[in-house]
Amino acid sequence: MTTVEIRLPGRICPVHIGENLIRQTGSFVASLGRARKVLVVTDDNVAPLYLDTVLSSLTEAGLEAFSAVLPHGESTKTLSSLEGLYHTLAGHGITRSDIVLALGGGVMGDLAGLAAATWLRGVRLVQVPTSLLAQVDSSVGGKVAVDLPEGKNLVGAFYQPDLVLCDPSVLSTLTPAFWADGLGEVVKYGCIMDPDLFDLLEKLAPGGRDALMGSMHDIVSACVRDKAKVVSEDERDTGARMILNFGHTVGHAIETCQGYAGLSHGCAVAAGMVAISTLSEKQGLTEQGTTERLVRLLETLHLPVTLPPIPLHDLTAAMGMDKKTFNSTLHLVVLDRIGSCRIHKASTDFFAGL
Amino acid sequence: MTTVEIRLPGRICPVHIGENLIRQTGSFVASLGRARKVLVVTDDNVAPLYLDTVLSSLTEAGLEAFSAVLPHGESTKTLSSLEGLYHTLAGHGITRSDIVLALGGGVMGDLAGLAAATWLRGVRLVQVPTSLLAQVDSSVGGKVAVDLPEGKNLVGAFYQPDLVLCDPSVLSTLTPAFWADGLGEVVKYGCIMDPDLFDLLEKLAPGGRDALMGSMHDIVSACVRDKAKVVSEDERDTGARMILNFGHTVGHAIETCQGYAGLSHGCAVAAGMVAISTLSEKQGLTEQGTTERLVRLLETLHLPVTLPPIPLHDLTAAMGMDKKTFNSTLHLVVLDRIGSCRIHKASTDFFAGL
Repeated sequence: MTTVEIRLPGRICPVHIGENLIRQTGSFVASLGRARKVLVVTDDNVAPLYLDTVLSSLTEAGLEAFSAVLPHGESTKTLSSLEGLYHTLAGHGITRSDIVLALGGGVMGDLAGLAAATWLRGVRLVQVPTSLLAQVDSSVGGKVAVDLPEGKNLVGAFYQPDLVLCDPSVLSTLTPAFWADGLGEVVKYGCIMDPDLFDLLEKLAPGGRDALMGSMHDIVSACVRDKAKVVSEDERDTGARMILNFGHTVGHAIETCQGYAGLSHGCAVAAGMVAISTLSEKQGLTEQGTTERLVRLLETLHLPVTLPPIPLHDLTAAMGMDKKTFNSTLHLVVLDRIGSCRIHKASTDFFAGL
Repeated sequence: MTTVEIRLPGRICPVHIGENLIRQTGSFVASLGRARKVLVVTDDNVAPLYLDTVLSSLTEAGLEAFSAVLPHGESTKTLSSLEGLYHTLAGHGITRSDIVLALGGGVMGDLAGLAAATWLRGVRLVQVPTSLLAQVDSSVGGKVAVDLPEGKNLVGAFYQPDLVLCDPSVLSTLTPAFWADGLGEVVKYGCIMDPDLFDLLEKLAPGGRDALMGSMHDIVSACVRDKAKVVSEDERDTGARMILNFGHTVGHAIETCQGYAGLSHGCAVAAGMVAISTLSEKQGLTEQGTTERLVRLLETLHLPVTLPPIPLHDLTAAMGMDKKTFNSTLHLVVLDRIGSCRIHKASTDFFAGL
């Protein structure tokens, strides 16, 4: 087992990474102390695979375990689902010393996380991420949220979990789409700050999913360590954390223009990383050959490297709406080279050559 | 003007207390920097009295000011009102650098505060409390929440305002009921930690509301200083802050049993303080004569000193439901004497003599 500690002002959040950790959920949760009850929040994709394992493990550890099983998918990440969870929490009499456990991908983590952040002004949160995207990204860093009709993640909080359990063995059950989704973010860490990870991915990618799964413990650990480093410097996303958005300004714009019914998040980010890197390399901001290397890796991983057919104006308009832009200047993350990046202030003109 | 600083890990929240401060809202808010837009959240009682003043002041300071006027009263403190505010925030394009301003009593502070805490994972919050209860209690300390059908304040957060402006002159427009409501909490500070304030109240009370209003700057300042001290020690209400609940365990039970349609919060707390003090004095936990002195002051202030006719069993059952109780042991705040208190662990037997 590998443990990464996310060091924040006044507290430390441990992330444990290890094969079959999910079967020990109960003992890890019990070791947090004080809790009598745990509400496990999961979706109807994950429940048949892992809910019984988690509930039994909690019960064996002497905890009273309840579950809420919601429909899978982004459309569940609403205020209405959140309200439903509040009634479930009230119904089971979950008190301040009890725990909410998110079992699933990013949607469950975000939704259950916001419920934990706001129930009785905050109860403890345990994340047991079951998707690659959630293990390497969304379960770490404390961002929780639900969507509004007006936009994604508009309602939320920064709320750190007390414990994250990443079990790479559960990734074997991911569909190809969810697998690809997570790989986009894995490649991102390599690009912005982790040249060794990028090298490792280049080495493993030709061997396909099996080769990657064989080293998944190392890959997830590297990503969590990278994210922990960034989050520790900037919990509330006011500066340093912005580098995690490499590829995301364009990626989010793609998702918005496609009404979140086209490319998955990780695939949109992959296409976004290539788009930004192509432009920044053309403009002399990025070392020559960087984009070529990035494209080759993404292609080997079966991730998209070209933008879907969306009018340029629609894309830049969607970028202007990005909540991370300030007063119409876009703060873009551009690569210096593979493994190093910086913030570049650009107007939408930056995208003229797209 | 008096300024009290609430010192918390990593940040300081200033509370300014001064006559006619409300007219300078704009310049204080502008001095926070970075904001372009301010959404003022208020109710239909307060809007006719102070909304124009606040909006003009904000506009004169160069800020774009919008308002949301909601129905007054606790029944507005719902998830549905919160959702409405989110749509208003989205409609006005309130970004992370903008500000939510709560203008009103505790209901507006709690509701707008939770909206600020969760909009885009947190935007800055300014509290301009217009009720005595809000000035001395709810606007200070960072507790924000809405109610559920299952109970009060079940959904919320700890979210500190960036600025609190307490203008005692606005208290002149309070109805007698709202005035009494706030006085209950004022007396509480005297009881638990501020013998000088208790003395001052005893001196002023026979002169009625005019006498109290003449010293309201000092009274509000004393209460805010007291609360700031407690909150600084225990932002998240896990220990020291519990002393602020003197009279509240019984007070909340009264409110619950009356379906929040009987005594106001401050009046229920007044009756609760007398009930607890009577019992603890009988049991030798409190200096003899304390209750008599407390009762005399509350009576002079026209606050209730006896419990409404509620069966004892209903009251204690309601106390068992109090979210601040842990595993059936009640942590009660009892007075040592006027101006000093401690936590006493009691079972519901404590109330047998009630």
